[in-house]
Amino acid sequence: MPDYKAPVRDIRFVRDELLDYPAHYRSLPAGGEATPDVVDAILEEGARFCEEVIAPLNPVGDREGCSWSEAGVKTPSGFKEAYRRYVEGGWPSLAHAVEHGGQGLPESLGIAVTEMIGEANWAWGMYPGLAQGAMNTLSAHGTEEQKATYLTRLVSGEWTGTMCLTEPHCGTDLGLLRTRAEPQADGSYRVSGTKIFISAGEHDLAENIVHIVLARLPDAPPGTKGISLFIVPKFLPAADGGLGVRNQVSCGSIEHKMGIHGNATCVMNFDGATGFLIGPPHKGLNCMFTFMNTARLGTALQGLAHAEVAFQGAIRYARERLQMRALNGPKAPGLPADPIIVHPDVRRMLLTIKAFAEGNRALLYFSAKQVDIARYSQDAAERAAADLLLGFLTPIAKAFMTETGFEAASHGLQVYGGHGYIREWGMEQNLRDSRIAMLYEGTTGVQALDLLGRKVLMTQGESLKAFTRIVHKFCKAHAEDEGLKAFVEPLARLNQEWGEITLQIGMQAMQDRDEVGAAAVDYLMYSGYVCLAYFWADMARVAQERLAAGTVEEAFYRAKLQTARFYFARILPRTRGHVEAMHGGAGPLMEMAAEDFDLGY
Amino acid sequence: MPDYKAPVRDIRFVRDELLDYPAHYRSLPAGGEATPDVVDAILEEGARFCEEVIAPLNPVGDREGCSWSEAGVKTPSGFKEAYRRYVEGGWPSLAHAVEHGGQGLPESLGIAVTEMIGEANWAWGMYPGLAQGAMNTLSAHGTEEQKATYLTRLVSGEWTGTMCLTEPHCGTDLGLLRTRAEPQADGSYRVSGTKIFISAGEHDLAENIVHIVLARLPDAPPGTKGISLFIVPKFLPAADGGLGVRNQVSCGSIEHKMGIHGNATCVMNFDGATGFLIGPPHKGLNCMFTFMNTARLGTALQGLAHAEVAFQGAIRYARERLQMRALNGPKAPGLPADPIIVHPDVRRMLLTIKAFAEGNRALLYFSAKQVDIARYSQDAAERAAADLLLGFLTPIAKAFMTETGFEAASHGLQVYGGHGYIREWGMEQNLRDSRIAMLYEGTTGVQALDLLGRKVLMTQGESLKAFTRIVHKFCKAHAEDEGLKAFVEPLARLNQEWGEITLQIGMQAMQDRDEVGAAAVDYLMYSGYVCLAYFWADMARVAQERLAAGTVEEAFYRAKLQTARFYFARILPRTRGHVEAMHGGAGPLMEMAAEDFDLGY
Repeated sequence: MPDYKAPVRDIRFVRDELLDYPAHYRSLPAGGEATPDVVDAILEEGARFCEEVIAPLNPVGDREGCSWSEAGVKTPSGFKEAYRRYVEGGWPSLAHAVEHGGQGLPESLGIAVTEMIGEANWAWGMYPGLAQGAMNTLSAHGTEEQKATYLTRLVSGEWTGTMCLTEPHCGTDLGLLRTRAEPQADGSYRVSGTKIFISAGEHDLAENIVHIVLARLPDAPPGTKGISLFIVPKFLPAADGGLGVRNQVSCGSIEHKMGIHGNATCVMNFDGATGFLIGPPHKGLNCMFTFMNTARLGTALQGLAHAEVAFQGAIRYARERLQMRALNGPKAPGLPADPIIVHPDVRRMLLTIKAFAEGNRALLYFSAKQVDIARYSQDAAERAAADLLLGFLTPIAKAFMTETGFEAASHGLQVYGGHGYIREWGMEQNLRDSRIAMLYEGTTGVQALDLLGRKVLMTQGESLKAFTRIVHKFCKAHAEDEGLKAFVEPLARLNQEWGEITLQIGMQAMQDRDEVGAAAVDYLMYSGYVCLAYFWADMARVAQERLAAGTVEEAFYRAKLQTARFYFARILPRTRGHVEAMHGGAGPLMEMAAEDFDLGY
Repeated sequence: MPDYKAPVRDIRFVRDELLDYPAHYRSLPAGGEATPDVVDAILEEGARFCEEVIAPLNPVGDREGCSWSEAGVKTPSGFKEAYRRYVEGGWPSLAHAVEHGGQGLPESLGIAVTEMIGEANWAWGMYPGLAQGAMNTLSAHGTEEQKATYLTRLVSGEWTGTMCLTEPHCGTDLGLLRTRAEPQADGSYRVSGTKIFISAGEHDLAENIVHIVLARLPDAPPGTKGISLFIVPKFLPAADGGLGVRNQVSCGSIEHKMGIHGNATCVMNFDGATGFLIGPPHKGLNCMFTFMNTARLGTALQGLAHAEVAFQGAIRYARERLQMRALNGPKAPGLPADPIIVHPDVRRMLLTIKAFAEGNRALLYFSAKQVDIARYSQDAAERAAADLLLGFLTPIAKAFMTETGFEAASHGLQVYGGHGYIREWGMEQNLRDSRIAMLYEGTTGVQALDLLGRKVLMTQGESLKAFTRIVHKFCKAHAEDEGLKAFVEPLARLNQEWGEITLQIGMQAMQDRDEVGAAAVDYLMYSGYVCLAYFWADMARVAQERLAAGTVEEAFYRAKLQTARFYFARILPRTRGHVEAMHGGAGPLMEMAAEDFDLGY
């Protein structure tokens, strides 16, 4: 694995120059603490922690993996110590409320730190990452007593948490879940059932683990409307707030996976474990949905993380590896061959990774800004608008960023030629680790249905318009700008086409609902490419302004313009294929009988 | 890993019904032995061997891997015994000349067996596969004595072989290679140097290993024109033809790789090892090129193999896994949920895999037919025509089939949802194993330059025309066929566009040779999609004819037509993106200074 370097300059470009986070923070009540000085300190300290403490553990985690015994799960060497330093540094508490021991900083700042952690070592970052999920649930739906008991210890990092949703027979289809919770006389519940794929379900980093568990009450209606949410701690809290008795929840085994070996993916057995209801009975799924957007953004950034790692590895190798001469004649005549960065196809791969990493970063921080507004704004209409926009962008970010992150990881490996396939370079680990992101937190197909069905068509296109209006405004404002014409004109065309395609699918869907499923993934990928086109056009605008104003960072801004040109010329054309595939409709997908697929044997 | 089932019916469809192999074999002098009965027996016996003997070892090989010690390399449990049965079955000798102990059957029949072996267990198949490379070299360039000593023992399977090309500092750029060969008084050479990435370089399957080694003579001119080819056996042959003394070649270590764990990828140290020149001095690379096409087809079929495995796994899971209801209402109301094959997006993935597997199979056997003609035809003009066509199709087959094979493997994993990421299902192994194919035997980028630069532009488009003429003839012949119109019309348009794009790039390349490198991969993928469009149109023709004539296999042929429609409606649109990307040209790839790529830190 190449030495990790946090892309602090680029994060600042996106946050400060493109999205004006300083003004954003000034406009939020919760943003008052996030002064430029504080933000700087956090980014710099976060970068140092990630570069020095957790990045070196990334190949270790892959090699050693986790090991299971009756006594529990042992994480790879160094993971526990790194977690101790993470807690000491106060990182778990960054974006949590002061009354629960948090630092009261905006969620978006937490996401910036999470980006760097994820890039440095995704498998390690999942332990505190899952705890954030549990904290968000408790914070939104817990009673004051539950917050005092559990949330404060999660915020301090003393304890970690998990989200226990999946069961062997149900992942996407949570309506089928069977885990049961029987009410007890003391107001608690006895929870019984088996959960699988529980990330960070058992480990040795912290003294206690707070499981947030989906289960059914005895009187629950069938399906998704009969699911409730429970807290099931590994150790029950004692009266003094410390650790009490061991609860009847245990890790039965851990999975052997393609990647993220450093994170324990657990089968969790609940054998009449004591649990406590959070939120109203039978409303567990609704409670989950309230923070699903944040959780999915957390997974979206995995795509960015693996693209960033792929880029750092590939660019170094492309400058060092000498192989063949440039087609137009030697570029490094003093060397036995030219560095492979002279070859157009190597550049195509490098620029593809770069355009995805930087473009997806813009999408991520734009979305994170909506998280802040939806959560903290004092204006209800502003909160609702941000929520609509976020709901629209989240499935795009989750699926598009992880799909392009996997593609980027594959290009990163490819730049190394045969060496990319060998463990020691780290590029194959990056590819293996990246592959999970298109599966968990809702597969690409599930995100696509959420986007096209639930978010776009069910709002009669309102959520789409929330974004296309922004794009339209941008295009109008810069229609006369000669330097931006090459971006604004195609962007405006795509922005219009987006609406037309949506209308078309909406009409077809009234005849046949399978048309939604048939178009969904192409629609989502198309949407992702257009979103990034907007962000790349806007980044080109910033770069052009800075260059016109004069800057000592000329090369940095010039590279932004060049990457934007590359994106429009060489990546955005993929939209053509997606549009034509959508025109193909559901017919060619649905006509084959299920039993006719495999007759060639 | 799902139980492997050899796709014998589909192989027969492609060979017998689509490509009329029976007539092809009757027309060849070497084809006389390949009577329908013999072909049937070989396919059936081969299928049984692959299904029963080597497929069960596929997950074993992945789990155990190979282990190195001073004494040698140990292959996974069962590999040696399977190889013994392979030799006993006479499989190594299938497509080799009778005078060297072979069965004198056509190369294309060997490829059919190799397909099934590769699908059953790619890592195992590489041991005999590499030996085929050594046999081809000896057969084409060895002296009679070398053939008698080495080739016969390779053909019998007593010994295996390798191809030793790559060195630590050179893979693609063989002109840089440093391994030296010093002539000795007895006519032999002392070979010294280090070779890496030597597949099957050391193992315990056979008593001797014949390395074919690229090295430089002392008086060699620099670059690719100074490379010679040597035989370096692990054990020198004794006077009686048996094993003599151990040679000074040894395996220093084996690589830890992303996949194909069952195959030993070796660092080979030649410490003054005794070697024997094959072919003329300094002409080693030319000698290699003479059979490069066959070797690359051998790798091309790895893409087919992983697509086939992905399909077999995905279709079974898609029919068994119950999750959610169909968008248009329950399809299996008696079950708790519908099988996921009802969902359009799951079908999109299944059909994508199926269209690639079956389409690539047609491309493979069409190419294999050209191998036969180029090698065995008694008509020199026919040989030359087949060679031109094969030269054109080979880089397309190698790169397109392995890229789409990797994509198919990824879809296969995705159909399983989170379970796809877990080892026990085998889909993640299939994806890991598939990733190497885009790297070795020339990366996708190298194949693309070979296609566009060497094969197409350097022949002034003659090699392209060799194929587009076939397509044109097909389109003309079926222009009035109502049932084929939906295929023939778009195919004819693409066939014309192919020539236009080629001309355009050719013109641009006269100004700037980087235009070739900039367009190459998009050009290759475009070419692959158009090739498959031709084969799918032709397969639709066969299916339509069979259905019109009446058949008991109605469902089989109907599925062919349906898959063809899917391919044209939902996959072929990708050509639009590639065309527009090519129009983007070299500018956006070349303008960024090498030092400006990574300023975001």
